[in-house]
Amino acid sequence: MSDLFDFPKVEFLGGQKGVDYQAAKGFNFYNPTEEITIDGETKSMKDWMKFSVAYWHTMDQRMVDPFGEGTAERPWDVNGVDDMSDLDHAIAKVDYLFDFMDKLGVEYFAFHDRDLAPQGNTLAETNANLDKVVDRIAEKMEETGKKLLWNTSSLFTDKRFLAGGATTPFAEVFAYSAAQIKHSLEIAKRLNSESYVFWGGREGYESLLNTDTKRELDHIAAFFRMAKDYANEIGYTGQFLLEPKPKEPTDHQYDTDVESTLNFLRTYGLENDFKLNLEGNHAYLAGKKYEHEARFAREAGMLGSLDANMGDKQTGWDIDEFPNDIYEATMVMYEFILNGGLPTGGLNFDSKVRRGSFKPEDLFYAHMAGMDTYAAGFKVALKMYNDGWLEQVKADRYSSFDDGIFADFDKGAKARDNKLTLADFENYILNKTSDEIYATVESQHLEAVKQTLNNYIYSVLGSRFN
Amino acid sequence: MSDLFDFPKVEFLGGQKGVDYQAAKGFNFYNPTEEITIDGETKSMKDWMKFSVAYWHTMDQRMVDPFGEGTAERPWDVNGVDDMSDLDHAIAKVDYLFDFMDKLGVEYFAFHDRDLAPQGNTLAETNANLDKVVDRIAEKMEETGKKLLWNTSSLFTDKRFLAGGATTPFAEVFAYSAAQIKHSLEIAKRLNSESYVFWGGREGYESLLNTDTKRELDHIAAFFRMAKDYANEIGYTGQFLLEPKPKEPTDHQYDTDVESTLNFLRTYGLENDFKLNLEGNHAYLAGKKYEHEARFAREAGMLGSLDANMGDKQTGWDIDEFPNDIYEATMVMYEFILNGGLPTGGLNFDSKVRRGSFKPEDLFYAHMAGMDTYAAGFKVALKMYNDGWLEQVKADRYSSFDDGIFADFDKGAKARDNKLTLADFENYILNKTSDEIYATVESQHLEAVKQTLNNYIYSVLGSRFN
Amino acid sequence: MSDLFDFPKVEFLGGQKGVDYQAAKGFNFYNPTEEITIDGETKSMKDWMKFSVAYWHTMDQRMVDPFGEGTAERPWDVNGVDDMSDLDHAIAKVDYLFDFMDKLGVEYFAFHDRDLAPQGNTLAETNANLDKVVDRIAEKMEETGKKLLWNTSSLFTDKRFLAGGATTPFAEVFAYSAAQIKHSLEIAKRLNSESYVFWGGREGYESLLNTDTKRELDHIAAFFRMAKDYANEIGYTGQFLLEPKPKEPTDHQYDTDVESTLNFLRTYGLENDFKLNLEGNHAYLAGKKYEHEARFAREAGMLGSLDANMGDKQTGWDIDEFPNDIYEATMVMYEFILNGGLPTGGLNFDSKVRRGSFKPEDLFYAHMAGMDTYAAGFKVALKMYNDGWLEQVKADRYSSFDDGIFADFDKGAKARDNKLTLADFENYILNKTSDEIYATVESQHLEAVKQTLNNYIYSVLGSRFN
Amino acid sequence: MSDLFDFPKVEFLGGQKGVDYQAAKGFNFYNPTEEITIDGETKSMKDWMKFSVAYWHTMDQRMVDPFGEGTAERPWDVNGVDDMSDLDHAIAKVDYLFDFMDKLGVEYFAFHDRDLAPQGNTLAETNANLDKVVDRIAEKMEETGKKLLWNTSSLFTDKRFLAGGATTPFAEVFAYSAAQIKHSLEIAKRLNSESYVFWGGREGYESLLNTDTKRELDHIAAFFRMAKDYANEIGYTGQFLLEPKPKEPTDHQYDTDVESTLNFLRTYGLENDFKLNLEGNHAYLAGKKYEHEARFAREAGMLGSLDANMGDKQTGWDIDEFPNDIYEATMVMYEFILNGGLPTGGLNFDSKVRRGSFKPEDLFYAHMAGMDTYAAGFKVALKMYNDGWLEQVKADRYSSFDDGIFADFDKGAKARDNKLTLADFENYILNKTSDEIYATVESQHLEAVKQTLNNYIYSVLGSRFN
Repeated sequence: MSDLFDFPKVEFLGGQKGVDYQAAKGFNFYNPTEEITIDGETKSMKDWMKFSVAYWHTMDQRMVDPFGEGTAERPWDVNGVDDMSDLDHAIAKVDYLFDFMDKLGVEYFAFHDRDLAPQGNTLAETNANLDKVVDRIAEKMEETGKKLLWNTSSLFTDKRFLAGGATTPFAEVFAYSAAQIKHSLEIAKRLNSESYVFWGGREGYESLLNTDTKRELDHIAAFFRMAKDYANEIGYTGQFLLEPKPKEPTDHQYDTDVESTLNFLRTYGLENDFKLNLEGNHAYLAGKKYEHEARFAREAGMLGSLDANMGDKQTGWDIDEFPNDIYEATMVMYEFILNGGLPTGGLNFDSKVRRGSFKPEDLFYAHMAGMDTYAAGFKVALKMYNDGWLEQVKADRYSSFDDGIFADFDKGAKARDNKLTLADFENYILNKTSDEIYATVESQHLEAVKQTLNNYIYSVLGSRFN
Repeated sequence: MSDLFDFPKVEFLGGQKGVDYQAAKGFNFYNPTEEITIDGETKSMKDWMKFSVAYWHTMDQRMVDPFGEGTAERPWDVNGVDDMSDLDHAIAKVDYLFDFMDKLGVEYFAFHDRDLAPQGNTLAETNANLDKVVDRIAEKMEETGKKLLWNTSSLFTDKRFLAGGATTPFAEVFAYSAAQIKHSLEIAKRLNSESYVFWGGREGYESLLNTDTKRELDHIAAFFRMAKDYANEIGYTGQFLLEPKPKEPTDHQYDTDVESTLNFLRTYGLENDFKLNLEGNHAYLAGKKYEHEARFAREAGMLGSLDANMGDKQTGWDIDEFPNDIYEATMVMYEFILNGGLPTGGLNFDSKVRRGSFKPEDLFYAHMAGMDTYAAGFKVALKMYNDGWLEQVKADRYSSFDDGIFADFDKGAKARDNKLTLADFENYILNKTSDEIYATVESQHLEAVKQTLNNYIYSVLGSRFN
Repeated sequence: MSDLFDFPKVEFLGGQKGVDYQAAKGFNFYNPTEEITIDGETKSMKDWMKFSVAYWHTMDQRMVDPFGEGTAERPWDVNGVDDMSDLDHAIAKVDYLFDFMDKLGVEYFAFHDRDLAPQGNTLAETNANLDKVVDRIAEKMEETGKKLLWNTSSLFTDKRFLAGGATTPFAEVFAYSAAQIKHSLEIAKRLNSESYVFWGGREGYESLLNTDTKRELDHIAAFFRMAKDYANEIGYTGQFLLEPKPKEPTDHQYDTDVESTLNFLRTYGLENDFKLNLEGNHAYLAGKKYEHEARFAREAGMLGSLDANMGDKQTGWDIDEFPNDIYEATMVMYEFILNGGLPTGGLNFDSKVRRGSFKPEDLFYAHMAGMDTYAAGFKVALKMYNDGWLEQVKADRYSSFDDGIFADFDKGAKARDNKLTLADFENYILNKTSDEIYATVESQHLEAVKQTLNNYIYSVLGSRFN
Repeated sequence: MSDLFDFPKVEFLGGQKGVDYQAAKGFNFYNPTEEITIDGETKSMKDWMKFSVAYWHTMDQRMVDPFGEGTAERPWDVNGVDDMSDLDHAIAKVDYLFDFMDKLGVEYFAFHDRDLAPQGNTLAETNANLDKVVDRIAEKMEETGKKLLWNTSSLFTDKRFLAGGATTPFAEVFAYSAAQIKHSLEIAKRLNSESYVFWGGREGYESLLNTDTKRELDHIAAFFRMAKDYANEIGYTGQFLLEPKPKEPTDHQYDTDVESTLNFLRTYGLENDFKLNLEGNHAYLAGKKYEHEARFAREAGMLGSLDANMGDKQTGWDIDEFPNDIYEATMVMYEFILNGGLPTGGLNFDSKVRRGSFKPEDLFYAHMAGMDTYAAGFKVALKMYNDGWLEQVKADRYSSFDDGIFADFDKGAKARDNKLTLADFENYILNKTSDEIYATVESQHLEAVKQTLNNYIYSVLGSRFN
């Protein structure tokens, strides 16, 4: 491996004792080779978590914002500029990705087609450019054993997509989108991508006044069906994933959140062909918590992969910050554990360094903070899970459904085969007094539950430093 | 009809010319007997709109808020107090409702079971109290020809429901909920209610930490199934409706918005047994516009009924204001028209007077403002619909899908039987240049579309005064 | 005047009768020569409203968004690109602005220094470039009589400002900011700019952790003082304006909203040297309504100028939409009237066309919609003002302060010279019964007030079409 | 001390080692007698923190919400009801407060006048009732040594205040408010209250349409002046505090947030007579973080006291949750330390148990969680402060202002006596190249700073368990 980034390999700090607050020196919690057992299945921390570097944020992101130019300094810059239009430059950049992953100790990466190579004047030319960069990626994967967590296709950057890709009112643009996806699936097949993601950044509307929402949804459902058929045709067996986000750049994105996306899939009979790729900041924009989205996807059997990032619940746009909130990391990793991990997914850093963190080393610091936060959350969640704590809280809370007609109802409801009727319950309750009923209602003690969660965090994570 | 409210009958002001800004004198737009034809079907404005008075807000609401006591003065008050615990008082209040409806010129009303009568010590006693008030309602309906738009059951006010009704972890409370709904359905049958509504105010969670969301959703789905089975058993054929709201009083209500509710219904195979009852302020709390929710329910064939109210998009709780926004009224009534009206529903005022509007006459002023706003919106929407304006805007926008393989795709997508493949579109587009494709992308001219909407509003509504 | 835009002069449609909904043909309400009298002062509508075209949005905005490239097509494009780095091109663009203003019938414009000309390698070179473009602007102003509403300096676009301009922690950047403002003030003097605006887009913080907020505020206050001193030195007498916005691009901008900005000015003794430039969308981001901000600035004697745009109260970032909400336009223009107009300011369109409205003609359609909306709001507000309606609503509401000790108190409070004491009021009230006091509390009838506002809008604006 | 609550005295768990997650057993971090030194001043943790129990939430709160009745069970209930109208009951409740404080180990409490005693038919009667309860409080204070952190007056609960107390348009209500405050100040004097708080829950507006905002603000400023004059007259020397909140129950509260409140005080020359009482959940409703509000109040010399509670940044109303967020507790306590503690204030729990935590013991669990969270935050903040970590981060960041003209400017700006001019800075920078300037801009490394904060939390707090 060439040594392109001027940064040492990041190491696990091991049995560190005493207080050292510097984030920058190594991992305090992410220990890639630590063996972790969940429900009898043992894997290394690295193989459970499957951290992934996002090409667009780490390699291409110049840290432009709506009011200012890019600030990024990158080792592949030519005269201080990332030459996005030069194919040789695009090929050379690939090597930086692999050096970065190697130094950080990450095995997976993810990309959009348009992240990799400049466009040509026709799709045929564009595909040819792309294939040359993919050639280099394939070589590096072969050489290093690194793997592609997922790839996807950008149907939002080019101006042709101003009114959507699969839901555009412009037929030529629709054709372009279909053809572009076709080639992306061929790349997924070639690089053995574990999943294939669709984020419909412009699949939505700017105004209901001029949008035929039903027609657009019919179109995109047929588009997804064609994509799945083509994957089957070429033998690409990776998991298809939809990524919900409620808005931005659209005023409304059809795949708004977990439940709206599931409703769409069920409406069009696509629910067996797709799972979901969730993101923290997207959840906030939809008025939800990340762990809510993870929970509802998991319980529907649809939790496919996770974008590990964070936003600010008081900021109304997507900031894609590297995650550092231990509460959220703990609760999302708890859902991860209940999901048995992410067999076809991983933890992809759809996260960007702050605009003021413009040096190459900040890419390392930021990933280290994110990886350590999620590893720390994993350790807390695992302790809570192994102790059976939260599961016991819930079991106790619903224990009145463990006997009699209530147990019958509970089992029937779960199996969708309940035999009881309203009259059965009326017979049971009609003449009970209010006080008798109130006596069965128990305090939730939620304040104590939340404080116990704090004590888990302090005790599990403090042990590293003491 | 007795004359209980000291207020004259509200009249349509007719061919008023010149400017008179007083809202209080009569309707400027709501003309109950005006004949309106939509797609060849002619009915009076009253029979299209089916305005409904909400018992809870108009009769029971004391205008308490979280920081202050009630302010309402009502003609049925005894010593300045609405004696909610006295059955005779409860029966006497019914007559006020009918006098109010008569003077306002409204034919429909709606109620929760607990709005009507005091609870007893057992459900049997509570039902007996309720039946006496329902007796009086039945007499007044017979006498006046007024109709019940919908009824529902309060599974949220009594403290037993602190952790839910159908999703409570407490079995006795679950039994109580089931039995309570049973009697509500019997009342729906008896009073020939056009619809039956479920609003799950406490069906959700306060914290994911102690909530088994999957088990709770299994329970409520089985609960709904029992309710539908019982309706079938007793021959109640009114439309079942779910009413989405994202939160308040819960931190998360399961029936969050249109799409999450549809996802729930589809998950449990209930989508043919329910439609939706939508509300403006609930939409805002979910981060949506009212017309968005109406559109998505309508296109799914699930738009059942509408609660006509308004909130403040910058206020984070449900204020249930009487509607006065002509933009929203116009757009919601446009969806109403595309839905062919609301055959089993209507426009129910789930709206309360402001806490400072505490006099009996404010109940009239507020309903008049709401009715006139929606009647005005109806007239604007009808003109836009009859002119074919917005439908033409959309037809033009998607016209590139009218020919060739795109027309085939469009028809196939609509019929869910598309025969085209990604390869077909690749063949079409692969060698077209970017400029050729850009040339097919047309300006949306959205600013002009929005300004035209303004001109519709000014011209259609100004004609009343000029 | 050369004829650079392929668009006819926009005309007032005059005594139009009958319904014509096309926004695109001309103004329905904006009649530049119509004489309007407010409190005895008569001016043309044009001279009251002083509409202004924003250079950055109309000339430079390419309609990039965070997820996509620019879509704009502009007549000054060279090979489909706005060559922002070429000085000759920059000079040539000036003529397009003046042609646009001429065809639209607008007399004012506004710009940031960096909108006009490419930067050089030093500030000296940058200033030289800028001066060449300003030369051309001066010629065109002389030739056409058009005027500069305000100019300002961009301390946010260049990457040097990543941590602020006047509040940067980097001394060289601070020096650059000071020097840059110096030259902007010289241009303001030269072009006779009516006002000079400071929008502190990056004057705030990304994180409290690393920000010395007090030190930064001390710096920016001294910076403003130096700017005012320099304006005095060179004899520039235009009004200085601060423009509040709560966030974006920062996480927190110091000039958050009207009251925080006034607090800053008062803290540092700058309140006599500055007024405020307000913007609708900025108000929403601060959780306020535009008319709230206008009211609070006006009552403090600090309402200097208005940016006429609109946002979406459910969207968390600045969309700078051209205004089309008649409610907001009416209420803001009502404050405008109470302010006696904007002697040193005007209505500047800090508004951009939607990304899908990418044709040159959309610049006209969008400005026409915005101008007509504000002209319509002006007409409604003027009628309400001349009728004395809202002022009477308020006079009635507070009328119990018109007599006795309450009148004394009211006058004293206004003059900040109240002589009454708590004991005086205790003497008055101590033995009054609750019922006696309640009897003096009157219903607010707010629903009727709001409905009357609707009737004003319909009747005043409908007269154009009937 | 009588033993009214069936709950043991809460103890500090001391040198606990090993993991025990139960929150309920005692304090893990709050050690009242632990000596803590800040900048050379040593006090016990208890004397620094001055935790206070809120009478309204702990004694009176029945956990009603807008959709449901109260759930609270309290040892002073008579037949399951808190008899709020009985004076003897009100007097008896006082003893429960003191038993609660004793068992919890808290020395301070706070109340509104209306929390304590039922109203009479006149203010004279109401004051007489109140004085009887205050008599009992005075006895218990004497007996136990407990102290009153602050008292206040409810000008929001009674319906007479529907349009405000000091800003009401109804003169009789204004007189009532003035007289009510007078008596509250007499109680403050009698009970030696450390501060006196004004929260203007209804001092704001429901609609700008009918509100004369300037007149109302003139009134409330004169009202505050009368209150301060009266305090001076009777020799009450406690600190006057305003408590900002942006809305709820009003649509807009005048004391919106720290900066708007400071602007009001400065406008009316009241800034030397008042400081601020801040609350976490109020900050969120204003779109701010709690530590932001604490920072801006502190730097203005106006941080008087803190309400220790928490909200949910995704919930739009005030939930007054007991605090359990270690990040927020740490950052707020960091401001506390920089403020030298709260000499005239403390940490008052304006916090209520969740509606499902309805048992008396939940009052203990909830306060324990809140106290331990803030004590934990105090310990982390103290370590960061004593290490000098964040202060060093800031000192480094601004170090380019340590020399030359920049040091002159920095000192001048701080002293408000800057002698430098724009021309001085222009001379310095005019011919420097962009690259020279960019080279002085340093990476902020914010991701590493945030990760270091995490490591502080883990290491400082984990030591308790290891």
